[in-house]
Amino acid sequence: MSGTSETAGYIEPGAYERDTNYITTRITADGRDGYPVEPGRYRLVAARACPWANRTLIVRRLLGLEDALSLGLCGPTHDQRSWTFDLGPGGVDPVLGVHFLRDAYLARFPGYPRGITVPAVVDVPTGQVVTNDYAQITLDFSTEWVRHHRPGAPQLYPEPLRAEIDQVNRRVYTEVNNGVYRCGFAGDQDSYDAAYDRLFTALDWLSERLSDRRYLVGEAITEADVRLFTTLARFDAVYHGHFKCNRTKLTEMPVLWAYARDLFQTPGFGDTIDFTQIKQHYYMVHTDINPTGIVPKGPELSGWLIPHGRETLPGTPFGDGTPPPPPRPAEQVTDQFAI
Amino acid sequence: MSGTSETAGYIEPGAYERDTNYITTRITADGRDGYPVEPGRYRLVAARACPWANRTLIVRRLLGLEDALSLGLCGPTHDQRSWTFDLGPGGVDPVLGVHFLRDAYLARFPGYPRGITVPAVVDVPTGQVVTNDYAQITLDFSTEWVRHHRPGAPQLYPEPLRAEIDQVNRRVYTEVNNGVYRCGFAGDQDSYDAAYDRLFTALDWLSERLSDRRYLVGEAITEADVRLFTTLARFDAVYHGHFKCNRTKLTEMPVLWAYARDLFQTPGFGDTIDFTQIKQHYYMVHTDINPTGIVPKGPELSGWLIPHGRETLPGTPFGDGTPPPPPRPAEQVTDQFAI
Repeated sequence: MSGTSETAGYIEPGAYERDTNYITTRITADGRDGYPVEPGRYRLVAARACPWANRTLIVRRLLGLEDALSLGLCGPTHDQRSWTFDLGPGGVDPVLGVHFLRDAYLARFPGYPRGITVPAVVDVPTGQVVTNDYAQITLDFSTEWVRHHRPGAPQLYPEPLRAEIDQVNRRVYTEVNNGVYRCGFAGDQDSYDAAYDRLFTALDWLSERLSDRRYLVGEAITEADVRLFTTLARFDAVYHGHFKCNRTKLTEMPVLWAYARDLFQTPGFGDTIDFTQIKQHYYMVHTDINPTGIVPKGPELSGWLIPHGRETLPGTPFGDGTPPPPPRPAEQVTDQFAI
Repeated sequence: MSGTSETAGYIEPGAYERDTNYITTRITADGRDGYPVEPGRYRLVAARACPWANRTLIVRRLLGLEDALSLGLCGPTHDQRSWTFDLGPGGVDPVLGVHFLRDAYLARFPGYPRGITVPAVVDVPTGQVVTNDYAQITLDFSTEWVRHHRPGAPQLYPEPLRAEIDQVNRRVYTEVNNGVYRCGFAGDQDSYDAAYDRLFTALDWLSERLSDRRYLVGEAITEADVRLFTTLARFDAVYHGHFKCNRTKLTEMPVLWAYARDLFQTPGFGDTIDFTQIKQHYYMVHTDINPTGIVPKGPELSGWLIPHGRETLPGTPFGDGTPPPPPRPAEQVTDQFAI
C-alpha cells in the first residue's frame, strides 16, 4: 500500500516546478497494493482538456478497455479546489454520485493536501481514489490489464523496447510535456527564455528523429507516441499563444506536424480530442496569465484532417494488431473543432 | 487654431472603443492654424513600437523629409502617464530637453486630460506639441510639405486617387488597424468573438483585393499601403498571440504575407521596423492582459526576408519616382530581429 511520496530538489528562482507527488498505489494483476485488476470495479476519471488525462483516454481506447474500466469525464474548467463533474445531468457523476472529484480523494485521505488531479482511478465500491499517478496508470493498462485487452490490441509497452521507450519518455516529459508548462508558468523573463530554448531544442530533436521513421520507438505506435501526441495536439490551440511557446506553430514544423496528423487520424487518438474543452480549460482556468478569461476563436484547426503522407515511412500503426473500433456513442466527442 | 474635439457614439457593452479625440491643429504650407511648414522648426516624436507612429516614420523616409523635420524617438515602454525619451544618454530628448513627452503636451495645454500619444509633432522654439492627429500628419507630409520632398519622392496621396485611398483607409482603419485592438482589449467573450470575425473578414477581403494587384490603390505605393503595412508588420509578433488574433498567422495568409514582405523589403518600410521594441511595448505595457510582463522569444522572423515574387503583378513601388536612400546612421534600426 502506498500513499503519497515526497521528492525534493533545487528550484531555480522564477522557474516553474511541477508537484510530482502522486498517489502511487497501483492496480495490478496480483493485487499486491490491495487493488487487483477486476473488470467493472474501477472508474477512470479524466477530462478531455487535460493532456495527462488524455493519455489514459487514448490507451484505454487502443487497448479496448472500455468494458473493463468505465469512464467518468470532468468538465474543462474548475476552481482552485477540484475538477468537477459538471458535464452531465445534475452535475453529478452517475456512478460515483459526486460533483467534486475531490470527494473521491477525501474519501480515501481525509484532509488530502495536494492538487486534485486527473487522471484518477476510483474504486467504485468504496468511492475512494486508488491512484492519480498518471505516468504509471497507462503503463499498468498495458501490462497489468492484459487479460482484458481487446483482440488485436497493440503492444504499447513491449518488453524489448521498454528501455528505449523509457529513455524517450524521460526527455519528452521534462522537455516537452512539462516543458510547455515551464514556458507558460515562468515567473520571470530569464526562466521563460531558458524554458523556451529547452522546449524548441527538444522539438528540433524530435523532428530529426521522426524524419525517417513513422513512430518514436520501434515500428509501431507505443506509449512514447501517446505521450508526445497529447502535447502536440494542444500546441497550436493553447501552448503557442497562451504559454508563449511561439517560435513556430506546430503547423510550421513539417515533420512534427505530419507526425501529429498521422496519429490524430489514427483511431484512438484524434477521436479523444476536444479542442473546445482544451481551449476553455487553459484560457479560463489560468486567470493569472489570462485575466480576462477570454478564449481565442483561433486557430483554424481543419488542417488536422489533411493527408499526412507518412505511410511510406517504416512503421505500421498497430504492428501485428488492429485498429480499435469507433468510440462508443456515449464517449464520442461531438463538434471537436468548435469555437 | 484648434484644440481637441469631441466625438460621441453608442458603445457596445464590453467592446473596446478608441479615444479618437486628437489635437487637430495642422502644420500647413499657408500656416492657417498658426504653424506654417518651415524646415528645422518642428520635431516629429515617434516610437518604433507604435503602429500609428510607424506610419510617420515610413512616410518621412519615403518623402525624404529627414532634413526638414527632425526625429525624436521614445522608448518602447511607458507608464500610464507618458511615452518617454529613455533611449538616449541621460534619458532626455537632445532637442526638446525633456524626459516625458507629456511635458510637450502640458506646455501647450496645461492640465491636458487625454492620452499622451505618439506620433506627435512639437514646435521646437516653444516646446509645445502642435498635433498628435496621426491620420492627418502623414497626409500633410504628402500635401503640405511638398517643397521639402526629396527629388524622386513618390506621390503617396495623388489627387486622382484620393477618394479611393480614403475609402480603403476607412475600412482598413476600422476593421484592421483598430480591429486588432478591438480583439485584444475586448472586455468579454461576445465582444471578442465579434471583433475577431470582423478582423478576419477584412483580412480576407484584403487578400482577395491584393491577389491580382501589387498595391492597394493604383499602380504604386500610396498612403493606403503604409497604413495597412504597420499593422501587418506587427501581426505575428504581437497581435496573433497577445491580442488573440489567431485564426491564422500572417505567414499563413499567402497573399497578405507576400504583400507585407514586398513592402518590408522596400526601402523606407522594413528599415523602420524594430521587432524587439514592438514586442517589448505590447507585452510589457499591457499588464492587464499580460500580467507577468514576460516577452515571448518568438516568433521566428527571418521569413520577412524571403523573396516575395510579387514583381510580376501590376504596379511598381515608386511609380515615376525613386526609392529613398538608406536611413541616416543615427536613425538605423540595429538588430531588428533580436529577442
